Amino acid sequence: MASIGIVSPQTMSFSQPLRLQSGAQLADYTLMYETYGELNGDKSNAVLVCHALNASHHVAGVYADDPKKVGWWDNMVGPGKPLDTNRFFVIGVNNLGSCFGSTGPMHSNPATGKPYGAAFPVVTVEDWVAAQARLADQLGIEQFACVMGGSLGGMQALAWSIMYPARLRNCMVIASTPKLTAQNIAFNDVARQAILSDPDYRGGDFYEHGVVPKNGLRVARMVGHITYLSDDDMAEKFGRKLRNAAESNDYKFDFGIDFEIESYLRYQGDKFSEYFDANTYLLITKALDYFDPALAHGGDLTRALAATEAAFFIASFTTDWRFAPERSREIVEALISNRRQVTYAEIDAPHGHDAFLLEDARYMNMVRAWYARIWHGIAQGESA
Amino acid sequence: MASIGIVSPQTMSFSQPLRLQSGAQLADYTLMYETYGELNGDKSNAVLVCHALNASHHVAGVYADDPKKVGWWDNMVGPGKPLDTNRFFVIGVNNLGSCFGSTGPMHSNPATGKPYGAAFPVVTVEDWVAAQARLADQLGIEQFACVMGGSLGGMQALAWSIMYPARLRNCMVIASTPKLTAQNIAFNDVARQAILSDPDYRGGDFYEHGVVPKNGLRVARMVGHITYLSDDDMAEKFGRKLRNAAESNDYKFDFGIDFEIESYLRYQGDKFSEYFDANTYLLITKALDYFDPALAHGGDLTRALAATEAAFFIASFTTDWRFAPERSREIVEALISNRRQVTYAEIDAPHGHDAFLLEDARYMNMVRAWYARIWHGIAQGESA
Repeated sequence: MASIGIVSPQTMSFSQPLRLQSGAQLADYTLMYETYGELNGDKSNAVLVCHALNASHHVAGVYADDPKKVGWWDNMVGPGKPLDTNRFFVIGVNNLGSCFGSTGPMHSNPATGKPYGAAFPVVTVEDWVAAQARLADQLGIEQFACVMGGSLGGMQALAWSIMYPARLRNCMVIASTPKLTAQNIAFNDVARQAILSDPDYRGGDFYEHGVVPKNGLRVARMVGHITYLSDDDMAEKFGRKLRNAAESNDYKFDFGIDFEIESYLRYQGDKFSEYFDANTYLLITKALDYFDPALAHGGDLTRALAATEAAFFIASFTTDWRFAPERSREIVEALISNRRQVTYAEIDAPHGHDAFLLEDARYMNMVRAWYARIWHGIAQGESA
Repeated sequence: MASIGIVSPQTMSFSQPLRLQSGAQLADYTLMYETYGELNGDKSNAVLVCHALNASHHVAGVYADDPKKVGWWDNMVGPGKPLDTNRFFVIGVNNLGSCFGSTGPMHSNPATGKPYGAAFPVVTVEDWVAAQARLADQLGIEQFACVMGGSLGGMQALAWSIMYPARLRNCMVIASTPKLTAQNIAFNDVARQAILSDPDYRGGDFYEHGVVPKNGLRVARMVGHITYLSDDDMAEKFGRKLRNAAESNDYKFDFGIDFEIESYLRYQGDKFSEYFDANTYLLITKALDYFDPALAHGGDLTRALAATEAAFFIASFTTDWRFAPERSREIVEALISNRRQVTYAEIDAPHGHDAFLLEDARYMNMVRAWYARIWHGIAQGESA
């Protein structure tokens, strides 16, 4: 199926300070975003796609000067795709604190004239959503047809439904969770400690020293990557296969690479450490850890979701042990307790947490049907 | 129940070179070991207890000069305990390459006169077993009443049953596996990369530089520790509890400690980095990765276990996701295919992989019953 083709990122700058959940504020900031498709006359066909840990505003299509840089959800978003850009006006926004164009730790701190580094304020999912809402204001979008996201992106979609109930008619929360478990937080903290203890991190001010804490980022990504894949999928893809071994039992007896899985993980870690920012990694893992909309309601997720108005599509994947189906079911149950309209899909897929990004006919068809329903409503003039 | 009380480690030195699975050899070496109880007249009551990753020969009791240093399996081994030292002569041996007394990377390499460091040869489970067998020879023990171990210790017990079938009447393999999965290897490699990329590792020669790669060891232990606990157990013990917070939603908004689980894991990592050797950690994770007795038999575990003669006690714990019950069942099935005598216990315990070290009445009673049976055989004069 055709990609949307060549796309261009845009920027929008905001001079009204953004007060953050921490109490800190960003005096001014810029958001980088992309749009695909056309906003219709009554502005009722806008869809916001929220990104997860290492992704960005570049959701679909390619860049004219870099035709290999395909958007991270290009299989989902485009002409004729489940989220059909012939029908919908789709927006991808890079979140604050990221390293792909929106204001982040590598940008100049107006208070010092030097890069923010570790002084960039800790931002939350709710902060990101508040910034996205201002972007929507500027684009003249009062209400989204749908806000959607997977994993950390799903948290943003859920936060939208709580913070701005009237501003979205539909909400898709895929492979996500209403809060991290102790084990999730533990893995995130291992990643953070790997970065923070890398001497090249330099207390977050590595930019001015001309170094990058690559070793820390590499280990952080390796441990993260393990949690994205299912045990079974790893067993099937890699098992105990040896790399560069003439015989099946040709162990190297050193600390280099014996097994394919080691080669694969180290490659993933190396690649990540080349393009991702260490401070951004720290910030994003904290945003994950902190997300817990029930906390302000004494831990009661049903009360946290009481104000929502959207119709919900919740999906999980059977082999996802990072954000297991049980976590999605907690959201579903809280929504049902609130008598919200909910569609829940628990998809039998082998690829663990990563499944939300991968081709799977049943998954894609369900998303397609969901957007067909939304489109039908728009065609009938349904909106706020 | 009473501990065995004050115990003393002993050493035994070997001048006959030990040829290792890698082809390398150790010209001479020393093993540190402890014994509890009395060897009977016909030497039929000896039990070898094999240790796992961070443990040692100090299985039970305390040291006169350090009464807080309780043996790692003191709840299992002692007078009146499941492995009753009033009946059995129990031996704990520190493995080669360890950092608790037996010859390891911090000892002098006779070829250079400097510490081995990373030049210490990569040793395997089978190499350890070969060294343990020589110790048994010197102690005059031709046949063990039982060889037992948990986790990596269970691999050694299983290797004993394959390498020296006539030298053990019983074999206990607890919370173990016939081989690591890709996911297991992946976690081990993350740990290794954390150590190897710590600048203080100095290519393994950190001893002579007066430094220790503590940051790497710390991260390695943190990631390992997560895999020892069950998700549910972590959720119950720590959940999302905050540390030093006045309010339940009093986030710190920095990269310090917010959650109890972070505090706990960092403490575990710090403690470990104070006493454990980085080269030993690398060696032991490689021994884990390499263990795969079926490999020499085309991957057929049944054939690998065909030569065994012992009666087997295999146990797993339901919430152990590091070495899941499925892995123990593979051993059981291969043994049954060989018509070996097998007792299998799948114990419903909440504590993940660590359960094998913890008190659990059903588990302890099963081990107790197993040793009562062995004792009954000895009393009736049963042996090889």
